Amino acid sequence: MNLLLFEEDEIDSRGRVRLRERRADHLRHVLRVRPNTTLRIGVVRGPTGTATVTRVADESVDLEVRLTGEPPPPPDIELILAVPRPKALPRVVQHAAALGTRRIDLVNAWRVEKAYFDSPRLDPDALRYQAWLGCEQGAITWVPEINVHRRLLPFLSQVLGPRLRDAAPPRRLLAHPEAVRFVEEVSTDSFSSVTVVAIGPEGGWIGEELESLVELGFVSVRLGRGLLRTEAAVTSLLAQVELCTRVSGRTRSRGCSSAPGSRIVMS
Amino acid sequence: MNLLLFEEDEIDSRGRVRLRERRADHLRHVLRVRPNTTLRIGVVRGPTGTATVTRVADESVDLEVRLTGEPPPPPDIELILAVPRPKALPRVVQHAAALGTRRIDLVNAWRVEKAYFDSPRLDPDALRYQAWLGCEQGAITWVPEINVHRRLLPFLSQVLGPRLRDAAPPRRLLAHPEAVRFVEEVSTDSFSSVTVVAIGPEGGWIGEELESLVELGFVSVRLGRGLLRTEAAVTSLLAQVELCTRVSGRTRSRGCSSAPGSRIVMS
Repeated sequence: MNLLLFEEDEIDSRGRVRLRERRADHLRHVLRVRPNTTLRIGVVRGPTGTATVTRVADESVDLEVRLTGEPPPPPDIELILAVPRPKALPRVVQHAAALGTRRIDLVNAWRVEKAYFDSPRLDPDALRYQAWLGCEQGAITWVPEINVHRRLLPFLSQVLGPRLRDAAPPRRLLAHPEAVRFVEEVSTDSFSSVTVVAIGPEGGWIGEELESLVELGFVSVRLGRGLLRTEAAVTSLLAQVELCTRVSGRTRSRGCSSAPGSRIVMS
Repeated sequence: MNLLLFEEDEIDSRGRVRLRERRADHLRHVLRVRPNTTLRIGVVRGPTGTATVTRVADESVDLEVRLTGEPPPPPDIELILAVPRPKALPRVVQHAAALGTRRIDLVNAWRVEKAYFDSPRLDPDALRYQAWLGCEQGAITWVPEINVHRRLLPFLSQVLGPRLRDAAPPRRLLAHPEAVRFVEEVSTDSFSSVTVVAIGPEGGWIGEELESLVELGFVSVRLGRGLLRTEAAVTSLLAQVELCTRVSGRTRSRGCSSAPGSRIVMS
């Protein structure tokens, strides 16, 4: 736990928080806090700050909270992910949250085993818990919203399509082992806004799914040399997109306007 | 299994291989091969090709092998990694091998729990097995050599130091959450040769360890926005280095010589 997270409504009017259960247990038994221990804290989707432990009891830990500064900007990556095998799901969600992900849509696909949808790990509370753990690990305050969509094509046409039309045109990337281009070879002029990345099942998307994504403006990219399991594919692509977004942001902030079709190269 | 791997000495003089145990079981029960099924194959650190199944028996599968072309070049990334918690170790090794890693040195560090060294997962055969699985997943023929070093400073001075002096000067990166630079901000002129990356325990390297690595020429880099668990840190850094190496290689192949101190930017 690199950042102790809580909801805004857990803070009382005098800036105090009483923690119970998991977080209190972690503070007492893992971090071994005592009165006056100082902790890094964050409010979900809100500001960060510090807290001082005021009391450690058998069933609770009391804190006095000081929030400083503006909330960090929300992460600029959204993830559309074919439901992975249930054993890997908690890790995938944790890593994506720790890397900073604005939203995760878990979707069905032809090559997703139908039995995966019966897993209790897909329950909203279980998903939110894993996202929360990832944020505590990553010291990220943005707990991503996670939704599960049991039918892919209606999700694409009725949910994602309108969302993409409403927002500023986001970069859309589709992980595909047979793609000819790598992430950094895709035109980078809109890495400035949100990047939506779609990662299929380990067996790949089928043709019809690929076509539907391409119709929505998704561009296929290769992740690299190896063929990766879902958890490594998610982490690799998010890390590479984050790098491209940083490079794009630095180029803009230096006053070098990025021409449409520009690429990442070495200066 | 995206590539069926075997050792060169498993192929007889007539280009035939008889598989037993795990690989035969996988071919029969997961891939459900039959006579005439064609498979992608690779020889460890050798060429790739295809094989045709000639016989499926209760305890073995026979193949006829056709190797094509030159062996792929070895991966250009080496990993020095503080021994992670044993539960995560198999995944870390698999992901690193699947991404393409030339060599892995698992090292001790002040913040590595001593009990980790008692884990059977650190046995050479167990490590090689996980690396092999990763290569089968990644379709990578380079099974990385993995060594375990129970004392960090003697490893650095007596093993790594001489190795770095003997080879062409490799890029040396050290993952450090407090570093001021990101991977792509480090001078990229030697991403052309091998990159050695060092990733510490989740609690971080201590000062003396950092100093020893810096003395060997390691440059600290931040991975990104979040603080990552070992498996996500390894995957993120390897994926980002691979991207930088690709960009560096493309720049060279276009005839743009990279000046010392050059950086990755957008054109």
